[in-house]
Amino acid sequence: MHHASEILFTLFVVFVAAQIGGEIAQRLKLPGVVGEITAGCAIGPSLLGWITPEQIATGTPLDVLAEIGVILLLFAVGLETRLEDLKKVGKVAFVVGVVGVLVPFGMGSVWAHGNGFDWDRSLFVAAAFVATSAGITARVLQELSALQRIESKVILGAAVIDDILAMLLLGVVVSLQGGGSIDATHLLVVLAGAVGFIAVIGWGGARVMRWNSAWLDKPLGPHSPLMIVLALCLGLAWLSTRFGLAAIIGAFLAGMIASETRQQHTLEKQTQPLLALLTPFFFVVTGSKVDLHELASAEALWMLAVVTAIAIVSKFIGGWLGSLSLGRRSATIIGFGMVPRGEVGIVVATLGLAAGVFDNRIYAIIVAMSLLTAMVTPPVLAWLLKRKTGGKQIEVPDVRG
Amino acid sequence: MHHASEILFTLFVVFVAAQIGGEIAQRLKLPGVVGEITAGCAIGPSLLGWITPEQIATGTPLDVLAEIGVILLLFAVGLETRLEDLKKVGKVAFVVGVVGVLVPFGMGSVWAHGNGFDWDRSLFVAAAFVATSAGITARVLQELSALQRIESKVILGAAVIDDILAMLLLGVVVSLQGGGSIDATHLLVVLAGAVGFIAVIGWGGARVMRWNSAWLDKPLGPHSPLMIVLALCLGLAWLSTRFGLAAIIGAFLAGMIASETRQQHTLEKQTQPLLALLTPFFFVVTGSKVDLHELASAEALWMLAVVTAIAIVSKFIGGWLGSLSLGRRSATIIGFGMVPRGEVGIVVATLGLAAGVFDNRIYAIIVAMSLLTAMVTPPVLAWLLKRKTGGKQIEVPDVRG
Repeated sequence: MHHASEILFTLFVVFVAAQIGGEIAQRLKLPGVVGEITAGCAIGPSLLGWITPEQIATGTPLDVLAEIGVILLLFAVGLETRLEDLKKVGKVAFVVGVVGVLVPFGMGSVWAHGNGFDWDRSLFVAAAFVATSAGITARVLQELSALQRIESKVILGAAVIDDILAMLLLGVVVSLQGGGSIDATHLLVVLAGAVGFIAVIGWGGARVMRWNSAWLDKPLGPHSPLMIVLALCLGLAWLSTRFGLAAIIGAFLAGMIASETRQQHTLEKQTQPLLALLTPFFFVVTGSKVDLHELASAEALWMLAVVTAIAIVSKFIGGWLGSLSLGRRSATIIGFGMVPRGEVGIVVATLGLAAGVFDNRIYAIIVAMSLLTAMVTPPVLAWLLKRKTGGKQIEVPDVRG
Repeated sequence: MHHASEILFTLFVVFVAAQIGGEIAQRLKLPGVVGEITAGCAIGPSLLGWITPEQIATGTPLDVLAEIGVILLLFAVGLETRLEDLKKVGKVAFVVGVVGVLVPFGMGSVWAHGNGFDWDRSLFVAAAFVATSAGITARVLQELSALQRIESKVILGAAVIDDILAMLLLGVVVSLQGGGSIDATHLLVVLAGAVGFIAVIGWGGARVMRWNSAWLDKPLGPHSPLMIVLALCLGLAWLSTRFGLAAIIGAFLAGMIASETRQQHTLEKQTQPLLALLTPFFFVVTGSKVDLHELASAEALWMLAVVTAIAIVSKFIGGWLGSLSLGRRSATIIGFGMVPRGEVGIVVATLGLAAGVFDNRIYAIIVAMSLLTAMVTPPVLAWLLKRKTGGKQIEVPDVRG
């Protein structure tokens, strides 16, 4: 009857910490998400220890709640994103995605080689510099009601491209570690699968919903459209992991499909409480993963500063170069919007640690770098977006029901 | 990046199974919850095996999601329950709670003794007959929009009394198994703690909110009242386990406190999507716990039939006798409303198995009995409530805001 006591306490602590952190950040005119991540860092293993490392390990309840939280967040972002809008920025987003992967990968591997890694291992380290985590940026854009801006569409489109490329790159560098060679045919198959999945689901799903979404109201349950799209969200999140992509890509697609329904407005409202309950778990858990002990030396801090600077500058340059056609101001926003690495950098670091490519310190530095990029971005992005008020908005004719 | 694949698939399967089961049940004019429990039984280990026993063990992500689901359900029920209304039915609810515990406990121990258990063990077996699980009944009452009826208030009030007594009883029978004696002082302290917790939190919290709930809007976040009451819900759910009570008692109290705020209506609306996402996990997981293999003999089925009949009849008599003062029709509804045992019987059975009091078959029978009572109740209750339309409603003057 009472086994649930310990986990309930943890849920309570995480939830309250997120609220307090978010509130303090907002009082300081910072995005709430910065406060939630900081709160996670504060209650995590390296400071207060109210969350233990075992509680945030892969597959634990807290980890799964965090995963559901970020999935719902990207679903909600998709719900505000029409396929038509993404098509309009398709070319720019593609260039931003590609250049935004190549520049950090190049700079990262040069830095790693300069620090004594052989080239194979340098490429592995560099992979941790690559993948943008859309969750952080999406949350900031949503907090500022900026999801309808052209820069937001480019960032979201580029994040999808970015995830495909990061997945391929990770496949390559992992197989290189095993002393293996690169199997080009296999890579092409993986690439085709991922691109095909996104194209078929995104384009097909949107068409079906635009053609007819009345059937969503057919079930007898009181929340039938919501239940169906949530099932779609979980299903596509799972399916996208089967194609080697992040779960949030599938969730974003599900949201984009649902945005074509005539129930879109109701769905948007109903999704808000779900985000309110579950996204704090994602941001607190993210913050709690940084290990401050490994960073407690001048040398480590210096290395962290250099790595973080490279991570920020390289991604910014990539995004900025890729979107210069939209003007310098928009390019600046897009460049910064691509900076956060969040959980993807952490996954690469974990793989590297397990494979013996990294020691504990490099691991901690890469994790801390991922989180620093995630924490630096929101305030800068908020400032850039507020400064550039009245910027380009996409004009979308309303073709719904 | 892709570790989440397996758990996402499970979440997807559970969620979709709940929707399909609920839809079929509603098409058959049964409460949706019956379909969700049946779906859980179908995809669970003993039939399709899409959920493994490991996935629903205590402390797993699925188990925690189920726990959050039932906590939110009782929170939502509390949100529709005013302290004033409960006070009006206080005496009846108290009698229903007490008699509704004594009769099943008496009949259960006589049956167990008649089946060869010595008296100490018989009392343990009987403890599995005792505790009503408010979740099932609450969901049916909510599905039928019957939460404002006087019978619903009595059932909810009695469920709180019931949980206190069940906790004390379980403490007694467990200590008897260890060959120990009953420590009356300790029991009194536990009783005083539980009663004090409920009284102070329920009465005090309601007063604070009625006096002033404008402060709930003070935080800057876009969903501040919701976030604060959700934190309260998690906090009280945890705290009530610390007083030996079920987590859902604390959640119910939190909802009841929040029902006194002037934001009550908004909160009610915002809670609905949370229930839609999370309660299916509770009902599917509940259903998946029945082990049909142990019941695959005529003898076992006969024993199950007898045990279930005793469980239903004894609880019905207790509830009916306790509430006769409200008239026979109301007493019938209340008697049946108290019948479902759900997860509490399962917990006693698990303790009994661990302590060597039960063998696997008795364990399976008690679990199946708990679930059968949970599955029999909803259709009967729905039928009784629909038949008696226009029944007594409590008149509550609106004293809010």
